[in-house]
Amino acid sequence: MKNIGFDFKVTHICKQTGARTGLLTTPHGTIETPCFMPVGTQATVKAMLPRDLHEIGSQIILANTYHLYERPGHELIRDAGGLHKFMNYDKPILTDSGGFQVFSLAASNKIKEDGVEFRSLLDGRKHFFTPEKVMEIEEALGADIIMAFDECAPYPADERYTKAAMERTHRWAKRCQDSHKRSDQALFGIVQGGMYKNLRIESAKVLTDMDFFGYGIGGLSVGEPKELMYEMLEVLMPHMPENKPHYLMGVGSPDCLINGVMRGVDMFDCVLQTRIARNGLALTMNGKKMLRNATFEHDFSPIDENCDCYACREGFTRGYIRHLIKAKEILAAQLITMHNLRFSLKLMEDIRLAINEDRLYDLFRQLTAQGALS
Amino acid sequence: MKNIGFDFKVTHICKQTGARTGLLTTPHGTIETPCFMPVGTQATVKAMLPRDLHEIGSQIILANTYHLYERPGHELIRDAGGLHKFMNYDKPILTDSGGFQVFSLAASNKIKEDGVEFRSLLDGRKHFFTPEKVMEIEEALGADIIMAFDECAPYPADERYTKAAMERTHRWAKRCQDSHKRSDQALFGIVQGGMYKNLRIESAKVLTDMDFFGYGIGGLSVGEPKELMYEMLEVLMPHMPENKPHYLMGVGSPDCLINGVMRGVDMFDCVLQTRIARNGLALTMNGKKMLRNATFEHDFSPIDENCDCYACREGFTRGYIRHLIKAKEILAAQLITMHNLRFSLKLMEDIRLAINEDRLYDLFRQLTAQGALS
Repeated sequence: MKNIGFDFKVTHICKQTGARTGLLTTPHGTIETPCFMPVGTQATVKAMLPRDLHEIGSQIILANTYHLYERPGHELIRDAGGLHKFMNYDKPILTDSGGFQVFSLAASNKIKEDGVEFRSLLDGRKHFFTPEKVMEIEEALGADIIMAFDECAPYPADERYTKAAMERTHRWAKRCQDSHKRSDQALFGIVQGGMYKNLRIESAKVLTDMDFFGYGIGGLSVGEPKELMYEMLEVLMPHMPENKPHYLMGVGSPDCLINGVMRGVDMFDCVLQTRIARNGLALTMNGKKMLRNATFEHDFSPIDENCDCYACREGFTRGYIRHLIKAKEILAAQLITMHNLRFSLKLMEDIRLAINEDRLYDLFRQLTAQGALS
Repeated sequence: MKNIGFDFKVTHICKQTGARTGLLTTPHGTIETPCFMPVGTQATVKAMLPRDLHEIGSQIILANTYHLYERPGHELIRDAGGLHKFMNYDKPILTDSGGFQVFSLAASNKIKEDGVEFRSLLDGRKHFFTPEKVMEIEEALGADIIMAFDECAPYPADERYTKAAMERTHRWAKRCQDSHKRSDQALFGIVQGGMYKNLRIESAKVLTDMDFFGYGIGGLSVGEPKELMYEMLEVLMPHMPENKPHYLMGVGSPDCLINGVMRGVDMFDCVLQTRIARNGLALTMNGKKMLRNATFEHDFSPIDENCDCYACREGFTRGYIRHLIKAKEILAAQLITMHNLRFSLKLMEDIRLAINEDRLYDLFRQLTAQGALS
């Protein structure tokens, strides 16, 4: 199907690393890649007003199909005019397919060739997700980029199981492609294959032949060591279509961001930034800082003096934020979330600049030396 | 003591009601009265960034001495450069004296002539508040307006007890006046006297003779019927010094705001707006709306279509906010808090305009007819 209002082009390839910058155009705007997508699971990036997201330079956010299907329901969001209008976010949105959540979050699940039967965590009721049903839900939600329904094999899983899951993912990808109707949405296929190099390469080839607008890389960062994930990427990425966006799903710690980009990834999403913020943990250029700790009680410096987020720029201090955490004040989550997201978006800005100036590996070494990736 | 950088003048008296508008100048800015002060108990107005407070037209906020003394401690706030700097709020701040909290919140308390011994709710440790100690704490916090340490009699209380508490409050007020040193802070005395008209009049006279910069009215809205509170105000207010600001402490529901103003009150504070917001209850021109209710599930209109707050202006709908409440998302508290505070600040703007145009009673009747006060 032709996608109206979409485009992707690679704008530069870093001579030092082979990493690429690009422009991904959607009906709600053009995204500079590589990009990091803040996660708005339940149609809100936790503790952030949409205008705060704009301010920190968020280009695109992710919302979770599984959660929104369960609550408030995709029909309600369709009736509200779609996700953009419902949550008041006018920039691009990507929805995942719920595949990962059906396997990892649902109270129980049963995989069949036709789809997955699962019980809701909210009310215990039985639901059945098929590729066609997921397309219907994602069309109702109305995101710009939608993901095909896939089966994400657990880690560890034996090769036979992983291969069967991958092949079903390919069949489901085809069914998604066949049933998806909205031309103002771009459908991404999802490469699976677990930790098996041959399967990863096979999955990339099969899906490339199906000619999706873009490609998710699923089933990584599911419990395996980071080095193994990087190894899988090194094997897989040369087989991914060069002229399509590559999205490493559910990955986004600072070290994974730059390591992913160096291996050819264009898009990332991760709940880490927002989740650790609510626990008082802040990302900084010198590593993570647990602002809850007593060591910050009398520390009247900003979270990160080099950061330009509202919290750092306006002089909210570590001592003040520690007080807010101890006093269980919502403002702690607001300020640290804003900071952690801005930190990650700024990192991506730095990465894009370094790619365009053919010095991404220099940046990697500099960030490593500073402790920013630890 | 002379207050540097302070002034209060009445600018107009409503011919219809006798209510007044005024200008209250402090070192951090001039406040148009009558005014409503959002409450920032623990050095943050819950769920609001300081810039959000500026946007909704907040002129002055209140912070609680008792809470800040317990956590993070007044010395820490002094070391951070005072409350304005600590919490990043550059407009006027008022601190209460902790008197009310020592009686209502502390784990236990014992009143002596010298002060009050109480046990901390946080750690069970014993503390002793005297008028001199409270002045020391409030000076360390560094608010623009500070309240004298008072004894707030419970409701109901017999006349003998209430009179003794009032007389102690007068002696403590004198001690506060004698020990307060910062000329960049204005000290308010607090009128007590419970529900006894003769005591209220006596308290007003005694404190007027002591010539405070302004006057709190304490011990109202402590459980008595609203009609009784209004009756007490009607008896008391003619005895309050006309050229000084009158602050009705801890009162601020929409009906109490306009009823208080009509009886001569210039300043209010209340946790209602922010507290009910976190439970999903929104103030509107047609009365309170519990947005958690299923009736709002498919309601895609704003909280209040006449409101100009970010939430109402930008099209966040009741249905969306209901979803956020059900999903326990922080954004629900952020949006409803913003709305409820703006609603109340806008009500005060409308009240000031009506006073200046000698039609406050007309506004009162109109708001009553609309259901805005119910």
